[in-house]
Amino acid sequence: MGDSAYLTQNESVFIERWKELLRIPSISTDSTYESECLRAANFLQNYLTQLGFQVELIETVGKPLVFAEFKIDDKLPTILMYGHYDVQPVDPLNEWISPPFSPEVREGKMYARGAVDNKGQLMAVLSGVEWAIQEKSLNCNLKILIEGEEECGSKGLEKSLAKLSEKIKADVLAVVDTGTFDTQCPALTLGLRGIAELEVVLSGPSQDMHSGVFGGILRNPAIELARIIASLHDDKGRVTVDGFYDGVLPITDEERRRLASFPITKEMFEGFVGTALNGGEEGYSLAERRGVRPVLEVNGFHSGYGGEGGKTIIPATAMVKISARLVKGQDPQRCIELVRDHLLQRVPEGMRATVTYCRGGGTALSLDPESNTVKKVIRIIHSEFNKEPICIWEGASIPIIGALSEASGAEPILVGFELPDDNAHSPNETFALEQFRNGARFMRAFLRAFA
Amino acid sequence: MGDSAYLTQNESVFIERWKELLRIPSISTDSTYESECLRAANFLQNYLTQLGFQVELIETVGKPLVFAEFKIDDKLPTILMYGHYDVQPVDPLNEWISPPFSPEVREGKMYARGAVDNKGQLMAVLSGVEWAIQEKSLNCNLKILIEGEEECGSKGLEKSLAKLSEKIKADVLAVVDTGTFDTQCPALTLGLRGIAELEVVLSGPSQDMHSGVFGGILRNPAIELARIIASLHDDKGRVTVDGFYDGVLPITDEERRRLASFPITKEMFEGFVGTALNGGEEGYSLAERRGVRPVLEVNGFHSGYGGEGGKTIIPATAMVKISARLVKGQDPQRCIELVRDHLLQRVPEGMRATVTYCRGGGTALSLDPESNTVKKVIRIIHSEFNKEPICIWEGASIPIIGALSEASGAEPILVGFELPDDNAHSPNETFALEQFRNGARFMRAFLRAFA
Repeated sequence: MGDSAYLTQNESVFIERWKELLRIPSISTDSTYESECLRAANFLQNYLTQLGFQVELIETVGKPLVFAEFKIDDKLPTILMYGHYDVQPVDPLNEWISPPFSPEVREGKMYARGAVDNKGQLMAVLSGVEWAIQEKSLNCNLKILIEGEEECGSKGLEKSLAKLSEKIKADVLAVVDTGTFDTQCPALTLGLRGIAELEVVLSGPSQDMHSGVFGGILRNPAIELARIIASLHDDKGRVTVDGFYDGVLPITDEERRRLASFPITKEMFEGFVGTALNGGEEGYSLAERRGVRPVLEVNGFHSGYGGEGGKTIIPATAMVKISARLVKGQDPQRCIELVRDHLLQRVPEGMRATVTYCRGGGTALSLDPESNTVKKVIRIIHSEFNKEPICIWEGASIPIIGALSEASGAEPILVGFELPDDNAHSPNETFALEQFRNGARFMRAFLRAFA
Repeated sequence: MGDSAYLTQNESVFIERWKELLRIPSISTDSTYESECLRAANFLQNYLTQLGFQVELIETVGKPLVFAEFKIDDKLPTILMYGHYDVQPVDPLNEWISPPFSPEVREGKMYARGAVDNKGQLMAVLSGVEWAIQEKSLNCNLKILIEGEEECGSKGLEKSLAKLSEKIKADVLAVVDTGTFDTQCPALTLGLRGIAELEVVLSGPSQDMHSGVFGGILRNPAIELARIIASLHDDKGRVTVDGFYDGVLPITDEERRRLASFPITKEMFEGFVGTALNGGEEGYSLAERRGVRPVLEVNGFHSGYGGEGGKTIIPATAMVKISARLVKGQDPQRCIELVRDHLLQRVPEGMRATVTYCRGGGTALSLDPESNTVKKVIRIIHSEFNKEPICIWEGASIPIIGALSEASGAEPILVGFELPDDNAHSPNETFALEQFRNGARFMRAFLRAFA
């Protein structure tokens, strides 16, 4: 166990600073919040400057990057820390107990959009950085790169990587944006799924039409789109899009053994999810369906009247937002284009489909549990938390990590403190103060001991 | 041709009065507009009182009824005129060229919600009533019944019919709430489809969940509901709900002949509809699919994120609003319950479905073209407009007409002036001033000549 005096004494300052960042509605997918994203970047720029970093705001084709550097000694290894200052949208707003951008601590947990993803984990590890700097125990060179488009495709960072390659060169890429299943100990994530997204609008009549006058002679976009969406999976939950599974390797016995030891159970989830965990493909375990099998999800479907009572119309349009989570061996852009083609091929005669976006956001990431870096991180965690960290395969994505690791030449490690019921991306997103402290402890220990 | 001097001299007054009614947002399906519905009823109460009617506002379980009576002579036949003061909702609001409750005349046409359905046709025929009264040519007893829930199920009127039976007793039930295909001449509607409605919410997780963390282990309500909706029709457009077509008689050769002469063509619709008329069941003509075959439509489908960009969630719920248009021989309540059962039987394990409403709104109406009343109305129209009116089978519904005809003992006749591109129930609803004049001319001629 580390000596936590500095952390204890400064906790209220750390929490106040975290809250300050949480108050900024930096929703990256919605252009309404453009200036708020810039405010969040400026906030981090100021904080890191105060800590003694050389900081710059790097313009991109999208939101700016915050890049900060703290050099100790060229002979020491260099850590590149990655985080993001943007957050997901907040709807349905009426399901939030406290407003999403008015952070509130209830029963030892912070509630706000971004409470955990990623502002909570980011501010936790930056508190650990501050701690190491203040106690002069920082024993490596540190680079910090914080982007503002993780929740909407990381385009700005992605397109800057070639240019930044020299600047971000490092030995290890430390990412704290994943989860654990243990309040006593962070987990090491060995796999992340890739992601790809698509939006399609199916159009029929030029406007909503009277469903009596036109029912039976006009095709109904809501029904036709439902039929197309229904064609995406077979009765066993398998994606039917031609070529979707190309390149996906079967799960080996060794992987199956490791996945079986991954402590994810129905009981763990069903309580707070409130429904059975019976989605996905037949013939795979819970951990396999979530961690190493690709999926295709509808994130939104909107057509016609949604208000109180009835309105007897044939809607003019129907829209779906679709996202795929992909595994090793699948090319995201190719996969989502296959999905697009599957949809477009099924547009009925006389209707039109418009693809608003169709983007392969990021490839899956798969780490080697036997690498020296991974083993060293396991030892550091063990010594700080008195426990062996579990290794997990995460169903979610941090699309940019693969490309960032390649551009910086750094081996990625993913250490996470988010708990399964922290409601990331959902109403009432939260992060326990205890997990915040653990994040700070881990980062301080890591920066002291890694070299 | 009738002498139109009175109409011409008073036209600006008629139009101003019509506009006054159009300014009242009497949307009956949305309880926000409760008091506006009452305002519309009061407006009509005042107008009819000024014309010399005995008027009363009759309370119901829903919106009040306006009932007015003008007695000439017990030996003359009594006409019961039916109309409604409520209108459909207005969304999508951004597609309106002028605001829906700021009536505006452009190029000889009135634009507003309710411009035609039913405020336009109602005020047109009330102008004809005024005309006949002022020129003292009213040659029958007249009862007028105007309800405020035609667009949401007519519950108030329906539940009052037994009690009102004596009061509304009449020989002919005159309804002016249907369409024509001819700007020179109204049409006689011989058939109206029935209607039944349903809303279902399918629920999965207790809230929107992260689609990476939970993709592959949670069932997705948007996808599952799409699969259920897709199961409602086969590939030939036929409804697959068990028992749905029970009681529907095959189309006879005579009906087929009459329907074939009904001047509804692809060219007539496709221009303003902007898409092919290839909906409905294979093997039936346009007029048959629209007029005498039942259909099942989705009026709204809403699930998950609908804002700008992407949001990677598995939605907590998915909702559909469904309506059926039914034909002679189908019981609306039974039909919609069959649809409900079809949906509920397909709810996947672990998900819940909530039926918000499930109501059989009204049976289909089918008139005898050989009846004396129908033949007399055809003669009156012929003499006023110098043309034989066409007979049409309307795909839409006026659910209450069947029950109203039964309770009042009156034979229904349906004469309409609405044109196919009047956008009833849609943005930019409109009614030509010329059609408004024709409505007044018809009603004045009818009231003079019927006896």
